[in-house]
Amino acid sequence: MTIQFYDLTGAEDDRRFSPFCWRVRLALWHKQLPFESIPWRLSDKEAIAFSGQGLVPVLVDGDRPVYDSKTIAQYLEEQYPNQPSLFGGTTGEALGKFVVNWTEKVLHSTLVRVVILDVYHHLHEKDQAYFRQSREQFFGMSLEAIAANPEENVAQFQRYLSPLRETLINQPFLAGNDPNWADYVVFSAFQWAAMVSEVVLIPEGDPVFSWRQRMADRTVGSMEGMEKYLTYR
Amino acid sequence: MTIQFYDLTGAEDDRRFSPFCWRVRLALWHKQLPFESIPWRLSDKEAIAFSGQGLVPVLVDGDRPVYDSKTIAQYLEEQYPNQPSLFGGTTGEALGKFVVNWTEKVLHSTLVRVVILDVYHHLHEKDQAYFRQSREQFFGMSLEAIAANPEENVAQFQRYLSPLRETLINQPFLAGNDPNWADYVVFSAFQWAAMVSEVVLIPEGDPVFSWRQRMADRTVGSMEGMEKYLTYR
Repeated sequence: MTIQFYDLTGAEDDRRFSPFCWRVRLALWHKQLPFESIPWRLSDKEAIAFSGQGLVPVLVDGDRPVYDSKTIAQYLEEQYPNQPSLFGGTTGEALGKFVVNWTEKVLHSTLVRVVILDVYHHLHEKDQAYFRQSREQFFGMSLEAIAANPEENVAQFQRYLSPLRETLINQPFLAGNDPNWADYVVFSAFQWAAMVSEVVLIPEGDPVFSWRQRMADRTVGSMEGMEKYLTYR
Repeated sequence: MTIQFYDLTGAEDDRRFSPFCWRVRLALWHKQLPFESIPWRLSDKEAIAFSGQGLVPVLVDGDRPVYDSKTIAQYLEEQYPNQPSLFGGTTGEALGKFVVNWTEKVLHSTLVRVVILDVYHHLHEKDQAYFRQSREQFFGMSLEAIAANPEENVAQFQRYLSPLRETLINQPFLAGNDPNWADYVVFSAFQWAAMVSEVVLIPEGDPVFSWRQRMADRTVGSMEGMEKYLTYR
């Protein structure tokens, strides 16, 4: 049975903006595993209740549910050892965790301020009240206040990219000559913005810009039926 | 012939504070290569003129000089492939570069403000004028101005450690169960401070504190004649 992948979407079925779901899509692509993606909205809690929790990404492989992007990556690596490696061995897996934590602690925490209002506007209306309430409670301020000073947030985001930029001056991907999980996790942060926002995160000429193009062409560009996701970029 | 390693020092021969030299010491230790360390001061330009440039670390292996910590690490890995691997393979090497760039772009650029006056005070007096002049020119301000707001600099440094901290909650070293080049590069930044300063960079109880202890015990603690370098900590 084909792997089923519950993937967050907005009002439209093809507004797949979740960075955590993008990681899984890219991991499945890397592992060359066929899958069916099922659009899922924040209020569709009952549709994934079988997984024992309420968030996507959720994968169903046979009759086994797996959730959480990092757990899913580990599951795929262990379950499909003969498919291309996501981590490049134990050292690659360990060092990759630093890249993941940098992405979440540094990039996401700035990027969320850049994209949160755009995400809100692209959500299905049945999800908007829940989204506003839960995020405003978490941040202790209104969505509009979180998103204040967009130019400053983008400038800070660009400064935070300095170690990525420096690395990509000398090698095509974080993982070397070919991308792996570390690249997918960082690229997924950019996809988050690309799917909902018109914001220019990286100017042309920046090594990060070229890497993002390489990543998009190589991955999204070769995924069947995914051409539309290149146009959001 | 034993490898010769030119190592930056202060007024005393055993004030080995350079983070770039610590990387090399740790890499030589990791590779289990015997070496002779030669204390070197900033004004001893003629002593390393044979290397074609004026900075340490410089290694002399046989009659071959190698300089720059990253070039030295690559040289040791290639030249001694049967000794324990510094990088853990090509993916580990590529991802390790991100850790190195994060260390230099993020950690060093904050830490330099914390330690620069302590470094200055511990230099040999023949090096002090050059050090002050070159650093003040680079930063466009006095050493005292660079070092202003020490509490703020330490607080910022601690915030910048968040991806390292998060990673070390779940694994003993950046490279996994055993340290490699990535760990040495980050640890060397801490050694920079530990060799010259009384500043408390990390409070006890922080996962980074425990990692630093593990690193020191495992590496410095097992280096012959290096016991004194544990007492600075």
